[in-house]
Amino acid sequence: MPDTTTLTGEAFSRTNFESLLKRRFFFTESFEVYRQAGGFKGDNRGLYDYGPPGCALQTNIVDQWRKHFIIEESMMEVDCTVLTPEPVLKTSGHVDKFADWMCKDPVKGEYLRADHLVEGVLETRLTKHRHTLPAETISEYEEILAKIDNFDGDELGELIQRLDIRNPNGNGEVLPPVPFNLMFKSSIGPSTASPVYLRPETAQGQFLNFRKLLDFGQGSMPFASASVGKSYRNEISPRSGLLRVREFLMAEIEHFVDPAAGKRHERFSEVAHIELPFLDKDTQLSGKTHVTTKTIGEAVASKMVDNETLGYFLARVYLFLLKIGVDKNKLRFRQHLANEMAHYACDCWDAELLTSYGWVECVGCADRSAYDLTVHAKETGAPLVVKEALPEPRKVTKWHATLDKKKIGPQFKKDGKKVQDAVEVLKQDSLEALAAELAKKAVVTVPTAKLEDGATSVQLSKDVLAIDQVTVTETTREYTPNVIEPSFGIGRILYSLLEHVYYYRPQDVARGVLALPIAVAPTKVLIVTLSSGQQFIPAAKKISARLRALGIANNIDSTTASIGKRYARNDELGTPLGITVDFDTLKDGSVTLRERDSMAQVRASEDDIIQAVRNLVEGLESWEQVSSRLPAFEGQSQVA
Amino acid sequence: MPDTTTLTGEAFSRTNFESLLKRRFFFTESFEVYRQAGGFKGDNRGLYDYGPPGCALQTNIVDQWRKHFIIEESMMEVDCTVLTPEPVLKTSGHVDKFADWMCKDPVKGEYLRADHLVEGVLETRLTKHRHTLPAETISEYEEILAKIDNFDGDELGELIQRLDIRNPNGNGEVLPPVPFNLMFKSSIGPSTASPVYLRPETAQGQFLNFRKLLDFGQGSMPFASASVGKSYRNEISPRSGLLRVREFLMAEIEHFVDPAAGKRHERFSEVAHIELPFLDKDTQLSGKTHVTTKTIGEAVASKMVDNETLGYFLARVYLFLLKIGVDKNKLRFRQHLANEMAHYACDCWDAELLTSYGWVECVGCADRSAYDLTVHAKETGAPLVVKEALPEPRKVTKWHATLDKKKIGPQFKKDGKKVQDAVEVLKQDSLEALAAELAKKAVVTVPTAKLEDGATSVQLSKDVLAIDQVTVTETTREYTPNVIEPSFGIGRILYSLLEHVYYYRPQDVARGVLALPIAVAPTKVLIVTLSSGQQFIPAAKKISARLRALGIANNIDSTTASIGKRYARNDELGTPLGITVDFDTLKDGSVTLRERDSMAQVRASEDDIIQAVRNLVEGLESWEQVSSRLPAFEGQSQVA
Repeated sequence: MPDTTTLTGEAFSRTNFESLLKRRFFFTESFEVYRQAGGFKGDNRGLYDYGPPGCALQTNIVDQWRKHFIIEESMMEVDCTVLTPEPVLKTSGHVDKFADWMCKDPVKGEYLRADHLVEGVLETRLTKHRHTLPAETISEYEEILAKIDNFDGDELGELIQRLDIRNPNGNGEVLPPVPFNLMFKSSIGPSTASPVYLRPETAQGQFLNFRKLLDFGQGSMPFASASVGKSYRNEISPRSGLLRVREFLMAEIEHFVDPAAGKRHERFSEVAHIELPFLDKDTQLSGKTHVTTKTIGEAVASKMVDNETLGYFLARVYLFLLKIGVDKNKLRFRQHLANEMAHYACDCWDAELLTSYGWVECVGCADRSAYDLTVHAKETGAPLVVKEALPEPRKVTKWHATLDKKKIGPQFKKDGKKVQDAVEVLKQDSLEALAAELAKKAVVTVPTAKLEDGATSVQLSKDVLAIDQVTVTETTREYTPNVIEPSFGIGRILYSLLEHVYYYRPQDVARGVLALPIAVAPTKVLIVTLSSGQQFIPAAKKISARLRALGIANNIDSTTASIGKRYARNDELGTPLGITVDFDTLKDGSVTLRERDSMAQVRASEDDIIQAVRNLVEGLESWEQVSSRLPAFEGQSQVA
Repeated sequence: MPDTTTLTGEAFSRTNFESLLKRRFFFTESFEVYRQAGGFKGDNRGLYDYGPPGCALQTNIVDQWRKHFIIEESMMEVDCTVLTPEPVLKTSGHVDKFADWMCKDPVKGEYLRADHLVEGVLETRLTKHRHTLPAETISEYEEILAKIDNFDGDELGELIQRLDIRNPNGNGEVLPPVPFNLMFKSSIGPSTASPVYLRPETAQGQFLNFRKLLDFGQGSMPFASASVGKSYRNEISPRSGLLRVREFLMAEIEHFVDPAAGKRHERFSEVAHIELPFLDKDTQLSGKTHVTTKTIGEAVASKMVDNETLGYFLARVYLFLLKIGVDKNKLRFRQHLANEMAHYACDCWDAELLTSYGWVECVGCADRSAYDLTVHAKETGAPLVVKEALPEPRKVTKWHATLDKKKIGPQFKKDGKKVQDAVEVLKQDSLEALAAELAKKAVVTVPTAKLEDGATSVQLSKDVLAIDQVTVTETTREYTPNVIEPSFGIGRILYSLLEHVYYYRPQDVARGVLALPIAVAPTKVLIVTLSSGQQFIPAAKKISARLRALGIANNIDSTTASIGKRYARNDELGTPLGITVDFDTLKDGSVTLRERDSMAQVRASEDDIIQAVRNLVEGLESWEQVSSRLPAFEGQSQVA
């Protein structure tokens, strides 16, 4: 476990932390009563349910995300189906390429993810035998670990063989890595087997709706779509709790941009001064992992980050993560290595958060170039392009092919149409090359769709094919937009955030506090009665109803536990504010308001306290401002 | 199509209405570019994507739902996985019983849902041949249609045979109905086939977490959990657009209540006076469909609605639907008939909304009794019960069975444990009956799990089994809570709501208006510039930024269309407010504010208008209040 510390810099105990999350039902393994029953079979790991505080935290993170990205940037949010027909994912490349490398241990009958196997075994060797291993072995292992995401199946197989890496469970040898597709498959409808998959990302639905979105935005470019929803990956061996699961909530943005304009961003100047911690690919390939801090303006200017749009989103992601409570000292932006990138990406930076499991990829910012729109357009014939009026008409000289149609029919018969199609789709560079060939030779070869005799090309002579330069006047320009995609794993962010905001008070190590910002805290206000006496309950209910009417989530605790214990329970739930109803409330209507982290209290009239709560929840006032203008209260509700 | 009218009482044209929804990208069939491409195979109907306005409307409905139910009632929201292992759904009854009746047309190779087939054919006969059909046939058909949800497979088969009902597509005869399970199946993990299903409802996850939720609420009863998430049903033949789909968003509440206390509800008195339109089961069984309006207090007092908790939720559902904009004249609560109820339910009322497709079930309020907790507890051995301290200890006389263990071993050998278990689980009524038998006969028969010789019962004689009455003092009481479940189909509500709020202005029939309440409107404010001149854009951007900072969704339209056309476009999007930036804005900073339905405008300073927008969005002021205190403006922005 890496040496992580709590928010207040104390030693981090994952045991205590997890005990808190379990005790307060932030989340649990799904179907626990079935798992714990005898005879429950099957691999159902990697599935988690969120309890009330986890679910509210998730809802609040998504709500903040919508405000920070969708409302702030006028993005077009869509909600597309999870069920996706096979042809869509065949085109996108997922059916063929969305796989991990897997090794089978034939003796144990276990399946292991190959890169995790190598990583785990080498990390163990380094930890256990660092003092006895030769220096060059240590540096070899460290270099492999720094590049672990960069190996393909053959390379992983070679490492497993050469370094004699075996299944830690039983020390058996494993078979060579084979690819395992990570998508869940089902079929739809009663009649035939129409294969469908559960989507592995929300992006494809956004790409397929590109034309409708462009029209909805009245043709204006650039624009961004966004989507929040569940995605699914049938992980080989889920592990690390919420960090590697099979069903997860994603929030994805697809920003469509004209590549010809250098992927500039209109609002880049608003963020150019923001300093981010970078770990670029050159540093990683040299086997190092140190972070360099520079402004996003410098990072884009030096081309370390490819373009303004990618840079703009890195900065906006950074601001979002800080807003929901992430510790800026446990955050870095790491660039993907070449082999590590998804099959569709041409550059990618991950926002990684440091946790007791190490650095965790929480937001991926990929430049998917024109990959997806191009392949779907090619497959379906749909014009997934932007057609823009040019500011003024322009003359363009182009290569143009002319077929002598009178000769094509007799010469090619049934294949005639295919030959015509093949010539029509020839690109400018091909036409130029063919023109040069035709100048020297009598006959050239043109690739075609499969012909009657099974051939996939045809020979065309000078008397049927002519290629010339022509000058035309163009008034519009057509292009396929590039896509910059910030993709958020909400569950990973949620878990890492909980580690970041966790601390404990020196006087009470076993009980923790979650310093969640008020905007994302599951419950905003705990209302406690001085004792469990019935006389306080009407006042507590009235305050609760007033807060509910303002949409402020609150709870009443009128149990018999001491006030300190009741507050301690809510510190663990991350509840930022507490209102106490006591004897003075019954006399003069005043109540106290307590802040979680300082444990300081103020006392004022019910109206004033409710207004203060409202200002705090809406971010109009800070606790410092509230506590400096309302009278302090030293009273009964310190931690017991 | 039923005779529905628009919000303003004009004739409703589904063609015009659907054209609006399509034109404004509220939703679309998923994968449209693939459907429209040649060679796309497979049954992929019943899948829809929401475009930007549909998605924002959905998000806002869910947000209002959370405020109305979860925050207002301090419900415990959970988020459980969609992937569900087979044993869970085997226990819940879904693997065996969650099916529709399906008929195959062997000639066409089509599969038809049996009840829809009967319904469609009889409705067509009534419409086309009403004048020639004998009076008794008409009344027979009408009676069948009124009870269509009440027939099982055999009965549907009998109707199809007797009334010669055939596939309307080709008039071919169909095979007798067979059950078709509606769950999507997949498998999880790389190693073996562990069958999983996509959940058909969110409820099971809530039931399985019952103990954790009870603990989270510190043991207090009654309480409610809730969940918002996708569910899946592999419909035989999806139809009616968003009304019968295979992937849909649900919001479900499971309210756990002590059945011994008569399912009373603490806050029932707050709603008892509310009048609801009811269609009860007796009315339906008499072949009628008229609605009776009475207060929910009367309905519960007369036992038409079984209990206060069910009644409380019917009233709360009613208030929610009105809040989001449903037309109260197109809303009724219909009671389920016996055969129509889900296998787990003991009473059920649907909130139905009238649309051009007829009455649509949008919210089901079922009393699931103790069914689910009981079957899961029995299957897993988990104590899904509430243990309550009694106010004072009580003496109870019980039947008690004693086995002579010394004799059991030698007599039953390997089966001994099973015999003991079988006796231990005997209920009080069985024990009483066995005691009476034992008084008369020497030997009684007790059912067991499968024994070594294959038998499933055992004979026990007086010398090994004694049954006596004993008196014990109990200090706690243990019970399985009953569950009242209001279950919301968000997509159906959304579609029906859109029909309810749709109208058109007499001067412009082709273009519609969606009178969505401000709380759920996708975009709250459209900001338009007087012309497309660049000079207005900075002021428009500044207002937009100020509204965004308040979390208020807005858009700028500075295209060259007339202001009237731009407002008309946003009337179709349901945008309730419009701000115009014009020459006076540049002079004195004032802007105009327009309200969608009255098309009335006021003019004031930017600050005053932004404050007015904020009050309107937060529900603190109505348009009547705003327009009476700010100066009216008669200007350029009437509909073109």
